Amino acid sequence: MTSLRELLRVGPAVDLKDIDPGTTPGLPGRKVTGKDPKAWAREQLASIGGEVAVHQEMLYAGAKASGDRRRVLLVLQAMDCGGKDGTVKKVAGSMNPLGLHVVAFGPPTAEELKHGFLWRIRRALPEPGVVGVFNRSHYEDVLVARVDSLVPERTWRSRYWQINGFERELTDAGFTLIKVMLHISYDEQRERLMERLTDPTKRWKYNPADVDARGRWTDYQAAYNDALSRCSTDHAPWYVVPADRKWYRDWAVANLVLEAFKEMRLSYPEPVFDFDAERRRLEADRAPAMAS
Amino acid sequence: MTSLRELLRVGPAVDLKDIDPGTTPGLPGRKVTGKDPKAWAREQLASIGGEVAVHQEMLYAGAKASGDRRRVLLVLQAMDCGGKDGTVKKVAGSMNPLGLHVVAFGPPTAEELKHGFLWRIRRALPEPGVVGVFNRSHYEDVLVARVDSLVPERTWRSRYWQINGFERELTDAGFTLIKVMLHISYDEQRERLMERLTDPTKRWKYNPADVDARGRWTDYQAAYNDALSRCSTDHAPWYVVPADRKWYRDWAVANLVLEAFKEMRLSYPEPVFDFDAERRRLEADRAPAMAS
Repeated sequence: MTSLRELLRVGPAVDLKDIDPGTTPGLPGRKVTGKDPKAWAREQLASIGGEVAVHQEMLYAGAKASGDRRRVLLVLQAMDCGGKDGTVKKVAGSMNPLGLHVVAFGPPTAEELKHGFLWRIRRALPEPGVVGVFNRSHYEDVLVARVDSLVPERTWRSRYWQINGFERELTDAGFTLIKVMLHISYDEQRERLMERLTDPTKRWKYNPADVDARGRWTDYQAAYNDALSRCSTDHAPWYVVPADRKWYRDWAVANLVLEAFKEMRLSYPEPVFDFDAERRRLEADRAPAMAS
Repeated sequence: MTSLRELLRVGPAVDLKDIDPGTTPGLPGRKVTGKDPKAWAREQLASIGGEVAVHQEMLYAGAKASGDRRRVLLVLQAMDCGGKDGTVKKVAGSMNPLGLHVVAFGPPTAEELKHGFLWRIRRALPEPGVVGVFNRSHYEDVLVARVDSLVPERTWRSRYWQINGFERELTDAGFTLIKVMLHISYDEQRERLMERLTDPTKRWKYNPADVDARGRWTDYQAAYNDALSRCSTDHAPWYVVPADRKWYRDWAVANLVLEAFKEMRLSYPEPVFDFDAERRRLEADRAPAMAS
């Protein structure tokens, strides 16, 4: 199979208009799998999840047992209803919660606004051995901050290279960054907003401000184009995942994570103690010592 | 079915010697279920996990959409190999990672030692709407701190009531505390240590110091008896789960969590916007506005 990281990676002049949110790049067709693509992708997701969980455990083990500083950070960005929460549930849901750190970034608090835009991001980074997931991220500071003019243009313009520097610092420190933009269409967003509105178990996610933001759709797409183009670097590339089909989206993001893990060539750490001595000690030890 | 919270809750004079780690309190037998108890418990775990996930979503929704301050904190304590990590994976693993915050407490860092013993605990508390899981906790400060004489006796003695006061502060602030001691036998611990030693995928968890700690087993049991007895309060009771059988342990802890959730009587928040106006707005909105 072609690497999804190659297929979905974007270069320095991406235009979201050229990427159809309804497509399924890299997904083998019915002729190859003999199955309905959706059913096949759902099945595969389960087995990819199992593989990812093993890599995740090795990552965690390396940090705990041998001081490995490596860690993984999955950054999810999307328009409202783009499927960030669903992706967290389906992709991160296969991992052991012990080695997982999910952070959702909302509008900055008063405290956060006192600091530079990367301050709250740094505080939320995963520890060595842990997989971090950012549901929104520092990219909001070149997206909503730009579209809604929350800061002057010279401020958001200087953030692209600040972000690139920050991310280089992270990869130098042992981070593997997987930056994913979930790309949905304008029509699909409307469908999903309508579903949130009408389903009583989803209505809590409905926010009238999301409909207002639709009025700035084209501005947002332009802001995304710039963020993706300027910050898709060799050390931290951006991937755009067509996300109108949730089953493709989950399968694709899970694959991006698995591919990144495989490239890390993790293994279980070797013991640093005397194996035979420990075995003898345990074999000899059958009854609790009395309290001293 | 009898409430597991009633069955497993301990009172003010608990002695772990009286609780057999190999038993399965509250588990219906083969005559009732028509199935092998282990197979039945594993099946039930999956369906309980599904139920817990719905409650967890309602908890999260309430915090996001209507400012509900409630949250849940599952505290796990056990001797080494008692199954804390496994319980996190199996019980917390059914929840949405977005509303889950798992924290493992190791030996305090130099920074943490500069502060009172509850300092790092307070920093790790879940936000409103989130389920927190503590893998070890402030109880280490009356367990290892006492057994290994890390602090003078007058210091650890005063911590029982400090803990009770702290936990009362939490429940007053909207926390539901579920404090679980996973109770394994001395023999079972040896089996599990041996398994860690011999299985290459588990060896990273093997720590020779754990075998040293076995030499202080009786002291630890006494320290647990005091912690459980003194800190099993009406607002934050302790539950002791017999944990030699992993499938019983997982089923029992999942049930304790589900019972606690049910008592919270959560529901999806009602919308605070004009439903009909929003529907009309969405229905009228079909094409993206051009960039301004």
